[in-house]
Amino acid sequence: MKIISGGVCAAKGFQAGAVRCGIKPGREADDLAILVSDCECNAAATYTRNRVKAAPIYVTMEHLEDGVARAVVVNSGNANACAPDGMDNARRQAKAAAGVLGIEENSVIVASTGVIGQRLPVECIEDKIGQIQLSYNGSDAAAQAIMTTDTKRKSAAIEFVVGGKTCHIGGICKGSGMIHPNMGTMLAFLTTDCAITQEMLQDALSESVRRSYNCVSVDGDTSTNDMCVILANGMAGNEQIEWQNEDYEIFYRALHEVNVRLARQIAADGEGATKLITCEVNGARSEEAAERLAKSVCSSNLVKAAMFGADANWGRVLCAMGYSKAPFRPEYVTIGFSSQAGKVVVCDHGQGLDFDEELAKKVLLESEVVITIDLYEGESSATCWGCDLTYDYVKINGDYRT
Amino acid sequence: MKIISGGVCAAKGFQAGAVRCGIKPGREADDLAILVSDCECNAAATYTRNRVKAAPIYVTMEHLEDGVARAVVVNSGNANACAPDGMDNARRQAKAAAGVLGIEENSVIVASTGVIGQRLPVECIEDKIGQIQLSYNGSDAAAQAIMTTDTKRKSAAIEFVVGGKTCHIGGICKGSGMIHPNMGTMLAFLTTDCAITQEMLQDALSESVRRSYNCVSVDGDTSTNDMCVILANGMAGNEQIEWQNEDYEIFYRALHEVNVRLARQIAADGEGATKLITCEVNGARSEEAAERLAKSVCSSNLVKAAMFGADANWGRVLCAMGYSKAPFRPEYVTIGFSSQAGKVVVCDHGQGLDFDEELAKKVLLESEVVITIDLYEGESSATCWGCDLTYDYVKINGDYRT
Repeated sequence: MKIISGGVCAAKGFQAGAVRCGIKPGREADDLAILVSDCECNAAATYTRNRVKAAPIYVTMEHLEDGVARAVVVNSGNANACAPDGMDNARRQAKAAAGVLGIEENSVIVASTGVIGQRLPVECIEDKIGQIQLSYNGSDAAAQAIMTTDTKRKSAAIEFVVGGKTCHIGGICKGSGMIHPNMGTMLAFLTTDCAITQEMLQDALSESVRRSYNCVSVDGDTSTNDMCVILANGMAGNEQIEWQNEDYEIFYRALHEVNVRLARQIAADGEGATKLITCEVNGARSEEAAERLAKSVCSSNLVKAAMFGADANWGRVLCAMGYSKAPFRPEYVTIGFSSQAGKVVVCDHGQGLDFDEELAKKVLLESEVVITIDLYEGESSATCWGCDLTYDYVKINGDYRT
Repeated sequence: MKIISGGVCAAKGFQAGAVRCGIKPGREADDLAILVSDCECNAAATYTRNRVKAAPIYVTMEHLEDGVARAVVVNSGNANACAPDGMDNARRQAKAAAGVLGIEENSVIVASTGVIGQRLPVECIEDKIGQIQLSYNGSDAAAQAIMTTDTKRKSAAIEFVVGGKTCHIGGICKGSGMIHPNMGTMLAFLTTDCAITQEMLQDALSESVRRSYNCVSVDGDTSTNDMCVILANGMAGNEQIEWQNEDYEIFYRALHEVNVRLARQIAADGEGATKLITCEVNGARSEEAAERLAKSVCSSNLVKAAMFGADANWGRVLCAMGYSKAPFRPEYVTIGFSSQAGKVVVCDHGQGLDFDEELAKKVLLESEVVITIDLYEGESSATCWGCDLTYDYVKINGDYRT
């Protein structure tokens, strides 16, 4: 398994490109992207579990009923959620993409991100979509075009070998901005040239999403528009993966590595964030308990604010564990903070230690901090990611819409 | 029912007082308070549901096993949670109070609020507690002494008539600071001269706490130290309330009015808050669903930040409802914002309205804003309270411990 460049175009036979339609007012950046495969793909997806779903989610669900697709069209600046003419406009967006690509409308996946409740100016999309220049090096252009309050493009790609054939898997994503999958919008688009059945592709994606994007900061709830899609065109020429054999395991590991790399980029680029927080829970009774605890810690405003202040306030960590509703024995809990600058254990078996405050400060001032929690109750572990809570978070979200 | 002054000493036969022990370093304010009744009281309490509980919670549970008490001793500056010698020190704190009051140790309720994980300097308490000057006008002194990051003292009192006798109920509280009952510490101490059995007192308190303090901002989870206690000394001379008759209803309404007034003060004084947010959900299928929706809206960081920015971003309200896990039909939802400055309906049956942005801004710039949500699905309602998310919140919590 080798980390490579190329993002969502790292796999054979995938092109991407972008254009500015003017949906994001007052900004010069592109806001519409297309991603397309040279041939039909098996496709799998996971969607937001929010009760309120945007129109493009419903249209994509329809188009993926047959399990195949060839392209993705995605705009930023407008979420097409709770918006007038939502379904009609999402269909027009797919149709416009199908038109310029010369493919079936039903082969196009549609996604949107941006403001809720305002009509999507689909006419701008219809007007400008023909100007998109597709390229086998188009990953960065597409990654840039799907950004909203993201400050950095996000992509990852991996090369791996299945049955003697070199395969690739890559992707781009946009942060939830919020870094809370339950609030902002998280979009991830993945491609692979590995040959794999739709069923195996969906299994691998669902499992990996649960342990990557859904472990970013909050409880697996999602915004109105969240979507993660993968297209597999089989162009690597390997024998198709049809069941959960060794090849499947190799594929899963590669896919998961890409997803974790993208998820970490989302967490690190949370709105206003100055640092990436990783919470590792070990020795839990079950993976579910470990995950609940790690998520509760990563999404606690008090923990997040303490991390911003480089304050080793482990009481807040323990408190967040306490209200997570996961079972654990407080009197067993050991908590440590670590980073490039070192490691400091602050609480041992539920009791505060007289730790080196100066070292703790140094550890927490780094841009990547790990909170390690040991429960000494079982064999299960989980890792979640989040970021700190800062002045800029409040600034960005105090006036995003206007 | 009449609003009166006097706080926790409004009821006959209750004295309070406070002193500075030096537990809050570098501050001049008092940090230890005592509240005592002239005679034995029936007592009821609700405690944090956090899995991690502070030592004073366990000691108070022990002391209230018999359902009676006479006094409360409470310190701020140190939570005595996950702290060395926690149980011993909480017991010493109760014993010190019993000593100066000349009562049984078992009649004393103990509470603490402040930093987690550090040993309570109980010696300071033992040293200074004798200097407390008790007074029938001591409510403000006690309310002041229990504050941590609160910026205002919080108290309320009501006069009401039961069976021809004038009764009083009053209380003081300290905000969770955080205004999230699941994170900071919420302490409330209530007294009444109304005669009521311990069982009825507990019923009324439990029911009222669920609809008041537990409706402040979050999901009913609580910090390590949260506690709400009521003492009833019967000195009003009414016939004792022994079952859920008309007198009980009168008592409940008075108690609930005091609790709602205190809960609103907590929400409005959330750390860094500039405004009180009330969320009313009407027309829900069940009270539970209404409550879940209202809490989800009040505790959404995105909604809170939008309120700080006076941004009528109703998409965030709908999104927060969507991930609350409560049942509702998005296509029925109507959302409005109101305040002293007027009312503006922003979403009708799930679709954005073309509302007056200028009026909306005016409405949201007020210090008390109400978000009204109509579901048109049933007859149930709920109200929750919260505050906005501000720069100061981040500032206060980025470096609270040091």
